[in-house]
Amino acid sequence: MKNLLVAQSGGPSSAINATLAGVVEKALLSDKIDKIYGAKYGIKGVLANDLVEIGSLLSSPQELELLCHTPSSALGSCRLKLKNTDTDTSSFDTIISVLRKNNIGYFVYIGGNDSMDTVYKLSKYVAENNIDDIKIMGAPKTIDNDLCEIDHCPGFGSCAKYIATTFTELNCDCKVYDIKTVTIVEIMGRNAGWLTASSALAKLSGCAPDFIYVCERALDTTKFVSDIKNKLEEKNNVIVAVSEGVKGPDGRYISEGPNAHYDSFGHVQLGGTASILKDIVRNEIGCKVRAIELNLMQRSAAHLASATDIYESRMLGCLAADSVIAGESGKMASLDRVSTDPYKVKFSLKDISKIANAEKKIPDEWINEEGNNVTDDIIEYMRPLIQGETPTIFKNGMPVHIKLI
Amino acid sequence: MKNLLVAQSGGPSSAINATLAGVVEKALLSDKIDKIYGAKYGIKGVLANDLVEIGSLLSSPQELELLCHTPSSALGSCRLKLKNTDTDTSSFDTIISVLRKNNIGYFVYIGGNDSMDTVYKLSKYVAENNIDDIKIMGAPKTIDNDLCEIDHCPGFGSCAKYIATTFTELNCDCKVYDIKTVTIVEIMGRNAGWLTASSALAKLSGCAPDFIYVCERALDTTKFVSDIKNKLEEKNNVIVAVSEGVKGPDGRYISEGPNAHYDSFGHVQLGGTASILKDIVRNEIGCKVRAIELNLMQRSAAHLASATDIYESRMLGCLAADSVIAGESGKMASLDRVSTDPYKVKFSLKDISKIANAEKKIPDEWINEEGNNVTDDIIEYMRPLIQGETPTIFKNGMPVHIKLI
Repeated sequence: MKNLLVAQSGGPSSAINATLAGVVEKALLSDKIDKIYGAKYGIKGVLANDLVEIGSLLSSPQELELLCHTPSSALGSCRLKLKNTDTDTSSFDTIISVLRKNNIGYFVYIGGNDSMDTVYKLSKYVAENNIDDIKIMGAPKTIDNDLCEIDHCPGFGSCAKYIATTFTELNCDCKVYDIKTVTIVEIMGRNAGWLTASSALAKLSGCAPDFIYVCERALDTTKFVSDIKNKLEEKNNVIVAVSEGVKGPDGRYISEGPNAHYDSFGHVQLGGTASILKDIVRNEIGCKVRAIELNLMQRSAAHLASATDIYESRMLGCLAADSVIAGESGKMASLDRVSTDPYKVKFSLKDISKIANAEKKIPDEWINEEGNNVTDDIIEYMRPLIQGETPTIFKNGMPVHIKLI
Repeated sequence: MKNLLVAQSGGPSSAINATLAGVVEKALLSDKIDKIYGAKYGIKGVLANDLVEIGSLLSSPQELELLCHTPSSALGSCRLKLKNTDTDTSSFDTIISVLRKNNIGYFVYIGGNDSMDTVYKLSKYVAENNIDDIKIMGAPKTIDNDLCEIDHCPGFGSCAKYIATTFTELNCDCKVYDIKTVTIVEIMGRNAGWLTASSALAKLSGCAPDFIYVCERALDTTKFVSDIKNKLEEKNNVIVAVSEGVKGPDGRYISEGPNAHYDSFGHVQLGGTASILKDIVRNEIGCKVRAIELNLMQRSAAHLASATDIYESRMLGCLAADSVIAGESGKMASLDRVSTDPYKVKFSLKDISKIANAEKKIPDEWINEEGNNVTDDIIEYMRPLIQGETPTIFKNGMPVHIKLI
């Protein structure tokens, strides 16, 4: 019998712990697995031999259920990219020696692009060095929805549900006064605009933002101001969604500002994108403007997670564990969409080499010609992903979470 | 038979529509009431004779229930303070003529301090002019919890539940990396720190912020930096709650900055309080710092409303309607706490003259000596107010709201 190791990496989400729950659930059921270890703070914990035995902490269905509804990465996380195996193998040597020291035959790494790069490099190293008794498996996670070889990413649906719900609620708030008001909401996403586009889901409740500027298209601030000016002639309250990573036609981030932005110490500062756009609207139009950042709330509001997302995230963890225990290596648990209506997916393994370091952006045809909104096709694609609510357990009026480290 | 008019005023909340539902529910039941009107955008709608007949829109229990779970003010709102009756009675003359024109004998105004000022002035005007056939009643609402003559304000509990839940969830997110991090969360409240103090409720889930700076005390930035520096020696991740309206020892708002803050056009700018404090921490300590504004989400997240708050808000609406129909005038529906454990309140009417323009701040003994936290007494006071969740109705994965105007 061997031990299984699992770790989490990259930015937190409301669903990454459901994937962890799936891995643990299947490892607990397997007669090939002795102990289940979690590495603290991702691959950093593996390198430092900082492991915690989590099988006994999660041995009841109640604890696994609670884990599914705990936001962020219960094992901690890191943002560490390993060097290429052809330039420096020292990290890989260390990892293998730590795995051997702890009798670990199976390693599941849950994360996004960078984490799949780790799975890729580590499985390549294992193959090149004929290490047969250690199997490596990736399990996907990213609110950004930008992984390739998967229909959509676990974590994205819950974040999208938070965003669509928030736009529905903000819509009630923003229109409360009969004065001209512009509300600019900044949403996470440096390179892919999926999350920003998910604000369009609020169309299903009649509360879509008036404009959506995703980072796949350049934002011309002159056009931006005229979009808003024209809309203010039609209606009092204009609501805008914008990606934090949107750039101008000159290729510079909007958050760098039209002029340098100074903090209170006189240092040049990268302001928030919404905040810069607020300054522009206030100066050019002069009406009441508000900038809102959905900030960490969008990725940690587990009380508003999508039941579909939590279910799929857990299933991907189950698949990753089952597959790696069965001897698969160098792959990622994935899902393809069979149909949208009725919504149906098929789970399978994908070759990790096609996933590591690749990035899936919004297809051009899902963004409107003017570059200030998305099309209904993207709503159709996203709609199933936010369906269903999760049974959050409250105690003392607040959600209950589980603590592993 | 006379008609009843109801209007909403001031900043939106997740519970003000529950009070509206209570008013409508009781008016529908009364044999003294013919039509139920809502004024659009508060007293502005009364002045402009811009009324909408809402009795027929809200005649089923389902519609009233949906209204209770719709955030913000369904009738719209305004921030308009009427002139004193001794300087200019023209607004009051207009209001009375509009009420007479619409055969309105009862007017319920739901709102905070400024709205209670309107109730006060209008009922004074009515009394002074011997107008016997128009009765005026206030119903309280303010997330700020700063009204006098009431144990706590409707709307506050839901906002506090959102804040406590968000700190519980942010706590999971902020500690995910094993690096020094400071997270500064800015909470609404210009003059009273009740909402900021509600972050202390997260202590009940083991997730209280490390420091709480309410606007009742001056914030010395040198002490602030040393508080955080010391705490970072104990632990990696420091979380701070701060009132938007906190001032320095010199009486200037912290948001005015230690130096002038310039926007991207070079104009002096009032930055967010958290953003200014972030600059200070980054410059003085140099670790990773994040500023988060809970912004409009804290007052519009109806999906996370407190069942206790929604119930009490509705009951206060019921009491306001019942009382005004019974002939009471110049009062506000209120509640006193009978006991905390078990939690029990008693509803009654309070004289409006004691409420208008008065402000209830956090008692000095509920703030710790250092001025960087609150005491357990305030947690004990607030705990009952966030109990219970509300049955949000979801459709298409998003909450369903009702639209009145």
